[in-house]
Amino acid sequence: MAKLKRIWLFREGNVNMRDELGGKGANLAEMTKIGLPVPAGFTITTMTCNEYTDLGGQLPSGFMSEIKTALADVEKDMGKKLGDPINPLLVSVRSGAKFSMPGMMDTVLNLGLNDVTVKALIKETGNARFVYDSYRRFLMMLCDVAFSKPDNKLAKHDFEVIFSDLKKKLGVKIDTDVDADGLKELVDLYKVHIKKELGRDFPQDVFEQLQISIEAVFRSWNNDRAKIYRQREKISDSLGTAVNIQAMVFGNMGQDCGTGVAFTRDPAAGHNQVFGEYLMDAQGEDVVAGVRTPMPISKLETQNPKIYKEFTDICEKLEKHYREVQDIEFTIEHGVLYILQCRTAKRTGPAAVKIAVDMVHEGLININTAISRISPDQLDQCLHAIIAPGTKYTVLAKGLPAGPGAATGIAIFDAHRAAELGKGGKGQKVLLVRADTSPDDLKGILASEGVLTERGGMTSHAALVARGFGIPTVAGCSAIRVDAKNRQFTIGNKVIKEGEFISINGTLGEVIEGEVAVVDPEMTGEFGELMKWTDKVRRLNIRTNADTPEDVALAVKFGAEGIGLCRTEHMFFATERRPIVQAMIMSETDAERQVQLDKLLAFQRKDFVQIFKALNGLPATIRLIDPPLHEFLPNLEDLIEEVATLKAKGKSDPVKEEMLAKVRSMHEVNPMMGLRGCRLSIVFPQIVEMQTRAIIEGAIESKKAGVEALPEIMVPLVGHVNELKWIRERLEKTAKEIVKKSGQTIDYKIGTMIEIPRAALTADQIAQHAEFFSFGTNDLTQMTFGYSRDDSDRFLKPYIEEKILPGDPFESIDQDGVGQLIEIAVKKGRSVRPKLKVGICGEHGGEPASIAYCHRIGLDYVSCSPYRVPIARLAAAQANLPDTSASKDK
Amino acid sequence: MAKLKRIWLFREGNVNMRDELGGKGANLAEMTKIGLPVPAGFTITTMTCNEYTDLGGQLPSGFMSEIKTALADVEKDMGKKLGDPINPLLVSVRSGAKFSMPGMMDTVLNLGLNDVTVKALIKETGNARFVYDSYRRFLMMLCDVAFSKPDNKLAKHDFEVIFSDLKKKLGVKIDTDVDADGLKELVDLYKVHIKKELGRDFPQDVFEQLQISIEAVFRSWNNDRAKIYRQREKISDSLGTAVNIQAMVFGNMGQDCGTGVAFTRDPAAGHNQVFGEYLMDAQGEDVVAGVRTPMPISKLETQNPKIYKEFTDICEKLEKHYREVQDIEFTIEHGVLYILQCRTAKRTGPAAVKIAVDMVHEGLININTAISRISPDQLDQCLHAIIAPGTKYTVLAKGLPAGPGAATGIAIFDAHRAAELGKGGKGQKVLLVRADTSPDDLKGILASEGVLTERGGMTSHAALVARGFGIPTVAGCSAIRVDAKNRQFTIGNKVIKEGEFISINGTLGEVIEGEVAVVDPEMTGEFGELMKWTDKVRRLNIRTNADTPEDVALAVKFGAEGIGLCRTEHMFFATERRPIVQAMIMSETDAERQVQLDKLLAFQRKDFVQIFKALNGLPATIRLIDPPLHEFLPNLEDLIEEVATLKAKGKSDPVKEEMLAKVRSMHEVNPMMGLRGCRLSIVFPQIVEMQTRAIIEGAIESKKAGVEALPEIMVPLVGHVNELKWIRERLEKTAKEIVKKSGQTIDYKIGTMIEIPRAALTADQIAQHAEFFSFGTNDLTQMTFGYSRDDSDRFLKPYIEEKILPGDPFESIDQDGVGQLIEIAVKKGRSVRPKLKVGICGEHGGEPASIAYCHRIGLDYVSCSPYRVPIARLAAAQANLPDTSASKDK
Repeated sequence: MAKLKRIWLFREGNVNMRDELGGKGANLAEMTKIGLPVPAGFTITTMTCNEYTDLGGQLPSGFMSEIKTALADVEKDMGKKLGDPINPLLVSVRSGAKFSMPGMMDTVLNLGLNDVTVKALIKETGNARFVYDSYRRFLMMLCDVAFSKPDNKLAKHDFEVIFSDLKKKLGVKIDTDVDADGLKELVDLYKVHIKKELGRDFPQDVFEQLQISIEAVFRSWNNDRAKIYRQREKISDSLGTAVNIQAMVFGNMGQDCGTGVAFTRDPAAGHNQVFGEYLMDAQGEDVVAGVRTPMPISKLETQNPKIYKEFTDICEKLEKHYREVQDIEFTIEHGVLYILQCRTAKRTGPAAVKIAVDMVHEGLININTAISRISPDQLDQCLHAIIAPGTKYTVLAKGLPAGPGAATGIAIFDAHRAAELGKGGKGQKVLLVRADTSPDDLKGILASEGVLTERGGMTSHAALVARGFGIPTVAGCSAIRVDAKNRQFTIGNKVIKEGEFISINGTLGEVIEGEVAVVDPEMTGEFGELMKWTDKVRRLNIRTNADTPEDVALAVKFGAEGIGLCRTEHMFFATERRPIVQAMIMSETDAERQVQLDKLLAFQRKDFVQIFKALNGLPATIRLIDPPLHEFLPNLEDLIEEVATLKAKGKSDPVKEEMLAKVRSMHEVNPMMGLRGCRLSIVFPQIVEMQTRAIIEGAIESKKAGVEALPEIMVPLVGHVNELKWIRERLEKTAKEIVKKSGQTIDYKIGTMIEIPRAALTADQIAQHAEFFSFGTNDLTQMTFGYSRDDSDRFLKPYIEEKILPGDPFESIDQDGVGQLIEIAVKKGRSVRPKLKVGICGEHGGEPASIAYCHRIGLDYVSCSPYRVPIARLAAAQANLPDTSASKDK
Repeated sequence: MAKLKRIWLFREGNVNMRDELGGKGANLAEMTKIGLPVPAGFTITTMTCNEYTDLGGQLPSGFMSEIKTALADVEKDMGKKLGDPINPLLVSVRSGAKFSMPGMMDTVLNLGLNDVTVKALIKETGNARFVYDSYRRFLMMLCDVAFSKPDNKLAKHDFEVIFSDLKKKLGVKIDTDVDADGLKELVDLYKVHIKKELGRDFPQDVFEQLQISIEAVFRSWNNDRAKIYRQREKISDSLGTAVNIQAMVFGNMGQDCGTGVAFTRDPAAGHNQVFGEYLMDAQGEDVVAGVRTPMPISKLETQNPKIYKEFTDICEKLEKHYREVQDIEFTIEHGVLYILQCRTAKRTGPAAVKIAVDMVHEGLININTAISRISPDQLDQCLHAIIAPGTKYTVLAKGLPAGPGAATGIAIFDAHRAAELGKGGKGQKVLLVRADTSPDDLKGILASEGVLTERGGMTSHAALVARGFGIPTVAGCSAIRVDAKNRQFTIGNKVIKEGEFISINGTLGEVIEGEVAVVDPEMTGEFGELMKWTDKVRRLNIRTNADTPEDVALAVKFGAEGIGLCRTEHMFFATERRPIVQAMIMSETDAERQVQLDKLLAFQRKDFVQIFKALNGLPATIRLIDPPLHEFLPNLEDLIEEVATLKAKGKSDPVKEEMLAKVRSMHEVNPMMGLRGCRLSIVFPQIVEMQTRAIIEGAIESKKAGVEALPEIMVPLVGHVNELKWIRERLEKTAKEIVKKSGQTIDYKIGTMIEIPRAALTADQIAQHAEFFSFGTNDLTQMTFGYSRDDSDRFLKPYIEEKILPGDPFESIDQDGVGQLIEIAVKKGRSVRPKLKVGICGEHGGEPASIAYCHRIGLDYVSCSPYRVPIARLAAAQANLPDTSASKDK
């Protein structure tokens, strides 16, 4: 085997080497290749990170000498040497995985400083304050990433405390008021502190510094926040991170220096204009950490038109080169512009849509690429969360519009508590309010409806993360004062305590009083255009799961091409109908039962007429009654309690007691696997006959009113072909009689849900009696795993945490197991009925990975809730794109 | 296509034509072929019956002229003609299906009698009484089978009433006291009655009589009792019945005439001696209907030594020819012996075993044939029901030992009520007590523990049926008087009313006072010999499902080769342990939980030591805890009621309330699919660690005591390979530590149950971490069908009645559906681990058809309850017999 090349100089690599060099490294190489002003450096491959992990946290033997060789090249390029007592080189050591994980892993800057090089650098720059500032930052950073542990005091925070104490002692308030001597004293204090905590001196050997930093970055791949991020983003843990070692340039050497972050287009709204922030006399971390509120990039045009021009030219060059919006870090060192990194820009959903559509119009990309660039989650952001039009609300303050969308929730002041109470926790609506956020807050941010911060810019890490996940965010709202300790914040005189409602509009940066109504947006403009493109590209049809005329109308507006699942029993729950249903269930004789069913018939027929009209000629798959009848009766436990209480008090209620007896007699140990679905239809055939009558008579009435109805009657929970045969015979008899009597022709079909494993296994038998199959993947997942959805939380959570399962199988189809049954059923079904129509109507029908899977195995359609219809259209189109290499292979 | 041959003369066919000619027809042909004195006749094929049914109850066109041709042959043979006014032929028309269904279908005798032939026959025989008796029987019988309907009075019973009335009028008590004139009057009364009820005269045309009779027999294939019988015996409804038309000979023409039924060996105990009954001056139906109590065949030797010798020679010839015990009907007409039919004799289980073993010793059959001849149900009879040795009991009366085995139950006087209350109904122990039984009583007999009749012989239909199904029966007990109307019977002065306990010993014909203890028999003699043969023949290993040392010892005595399923949680239910288990469940912390687990450890370790000792070196598959923990806590509904009652009374019970809160918090909607099996082991790893410790420490202790232990630790309810990996890692760690510390070597294995569909589908992944698979077909059936066993009765019963399912899938493996998953799992499992040990431990493991299936698909073993072990041994041997054509292809 050829020797593994673990280290690539920037000039050796290119943008296609993301697997080996990570996103940042590949881009640095590419930028170097296309002639941008990139400081020299090299990249250690992601495989080396895995080697390090596999060796139990050891660098491969001989690795540091490989580093020295590469370093020599950089030293030659820069004309400086690491650790040189005369002309020392400083370098940065940065993580860089294949997929961007902003702020999740560690970085070390100013590496190469020690007591010797500090002196050389002072001599060279004549700026002792800058050098000691760099040195104290380096001491702190290296300790924080490499040595900090729960049982020592070497975290960044511990060093900040020492700095604060010193500032108090010196009588100054802000960092920049501390002069060179002060910083020199701080460096000494840091060194003493390090020796005390670490049991040794801070390493003065620059190569040791380098090795320590590289190992720390490797280790940071597996820190908790990185793991959580990857789990959320479905990034494989096995990829590893690359490490980029690059000559330092400084934005904090004075007022002719600066640093910034910019996007080639507006990542929030998508407008085609350079968008970013910078700070003069600062290091990059000052901008991204959100501690100081930076200047908008447009100010640079007045402050330094030459640099501004140079920078915007580079932006244009980069966007043309990558045909994609770039997120760029830059530094100005004594008036010279350096590009430190570029990467594909994260953006909001609306921005993603606008940018993709704009780029097609600009000729930069084609329609397929545009479609491939929108993630379903981004599209989802376009569909959710605006304040209900016409709502009157009070804006208490304004901050930066860091994440679009409106959100409302109870104010919570720490991420841990937000995670506990919010989404994925107790399910309360939580709005996270923080002075500033840090990457450690990730879990809490994900659990929140929205995020509000006192400090931090549009590009602060937390804002970026929140935006990436479509969480409405208002950042840098300096009008508020957050008092996390006392669990409250103030706006002027107004105090908002933990648990009180607060709202934000992330699109406008507004902080809003109390709770407001939040509604979904219209689908117009670029959004509408993109959606039309997806319809051209996709092969899968998209239907909707809807039980009311209103839902049907909404889904059709969203592009649904029919109903995939209309749950007829939902129509039984309405207030005026439930007593009739109960009376039907309590009936002792068929005749009594029929009286009640006749009443229900009138309701259901009307429902169907309205649904057919809302569909306006689109097909409707209507499922016959499915849930156990006891679901329509009062709760058994409540009844037991009521009756026992009455009895103990010497009272009696014959109606209650009769109901209790009935509910007891119908009680099931495992109702999910009991008398429901087609089993009900066989034990109580009158119900199905009523439903068939309602459907067919409804279709006739709709047709008479000028709207063609295409009912597809679906028999649920079939496990044996004879169930379907038995019911089909009775359905057809009823239907034919009604149709014949009406003198009309009604084009109806009869099919079945495939949701019992046995049905999938014997689909060849079943397909002989079914014109269509619809996979009920909720139940199919329940039965295939033996998981009751009502009870599985208690073990599914630990299962996912312990990585026993890759994810919740009720969210995304388990292709390995449940998928096998689906594929068996499709193959067997079509073996006897080649034109069998096959779709899916479980909740997986609206989940992109499942939709892609349904496309791949050749289903005809997916059906999902109305609000998921646009996402399904997009996912179906993405699944059918000719070049699938464009999709992320996480 | 060649013209279908619908009619076969007896001399044209042979015994291999059972498909076409039915059992009786094929035997009549065979007997004719080997030269026995069989009256001439022909057989209409079973296919013609199906044609008749398919034509909607119409004979194929031209069929009656085919009949005439065949009849001409018979007429030539007998020198008589049907309907001839001078020398008339009379024929019988009998059903005869491929598999014997005694008394289930219709028969017409004396066909060919009319007002004209009656006169000819009187002239010919000079016996007017016999002729009118035959005529009145024929009138009654043809009306009963062909014309009787619920809305007329043409059933046998209606004619009996007329006869009774006449006897009263004539002042006589028994039939034989009515003279020729009386019977002539009766014939006239019958004809008037028939005209009134039927609206026409009784058909005088003999060919019309013949056609009516043939059609009636065809129709009787689908009467209710025939259907029930076929369902019980698993005979296909599509076979149809043949019809045998045969010249009549008469046993009722005087004292030199007679008729009888005999077996070539004793069908109750299996002794090698001709066994049967006969009546002089009687027709066959008098013997089999059980109205007159017949004479034992041995009496014939004294009464007519020549005929007796001739008959026993025929018996020997037949047994040698068929190499099987024969059930023979014979008639003596004026001193001439005729054989009317022979067929393989039904027999009791003990008789079947004795006969098969004897025949091997006699050189008539080989071991394989002997094994193939014992049905698992017959073997089952050898295993059940004797009165507990040493029991003192009072014999109230003695009858015929018609069905061996002891039974005890409440006296019930009609079959309908027995069916309602007994097995398959409310599940009470019922003893059916009848004056005599009729084929209509079948359902009630099957529901009873035993049957007691006042009248009827050993070969009465009902006794035969009861014996065939292993139901202990005492028949013809003339000491009792059954008063069905008043629901009681008397023995002397003793009155036993409905609902009072009564017992019988069918082996000795004893009627026993009250309830007695009934126990299972020893396994010795022929039984033991047969069992040894099965062990030589079978390939499958047989294990047992046992949780206690007692059960293990019993199973080993029955031939079990190890434990296939030891359910460890059953050990938690004992009185002294349950509070500890409850305390363990109520624990708030891991430490609290551990305290309780340590207590349980001591118990479980002791259990395992005892089990290993009882196994004496045989392997033991031990399943880790499986049921949801709330099964160990009090019932939720009871608690709700108790607490509500207390509260309503203003009292409070903090312990109860805490328990209620805990039970509520652990309550599951579908516990079958909830936190149980390996899910428990992952959420509460301490429990499994305790169990592993108990198993391994128990094995060490057993080994130290000199008994090798071979534990196979089984992880239940695995659905994803990672579950098994996760648990296996922890198990092995615990086990290795203990083994290492002990200084012993313990040969243990770790494997899994396959009971979740997903496990079967991903068995290739799972087998990489499992040394064995055991199919938990109970749960696998539940999940594959989506049937909760606890709740499925409500629809499984109608499903089986409506033939939606061929049978209860919890009884016999559903090979079409569940079987597919099993086969997938075996194939995939062995693809990665060729030596994977695969067995089955669901209740199907003791069911013969399922065992044959397990053999066929290559499993290594089946495991069943101790009492099923011998049956499993037999079924496994039968499955491995080289020539499977010997098995019934019902």
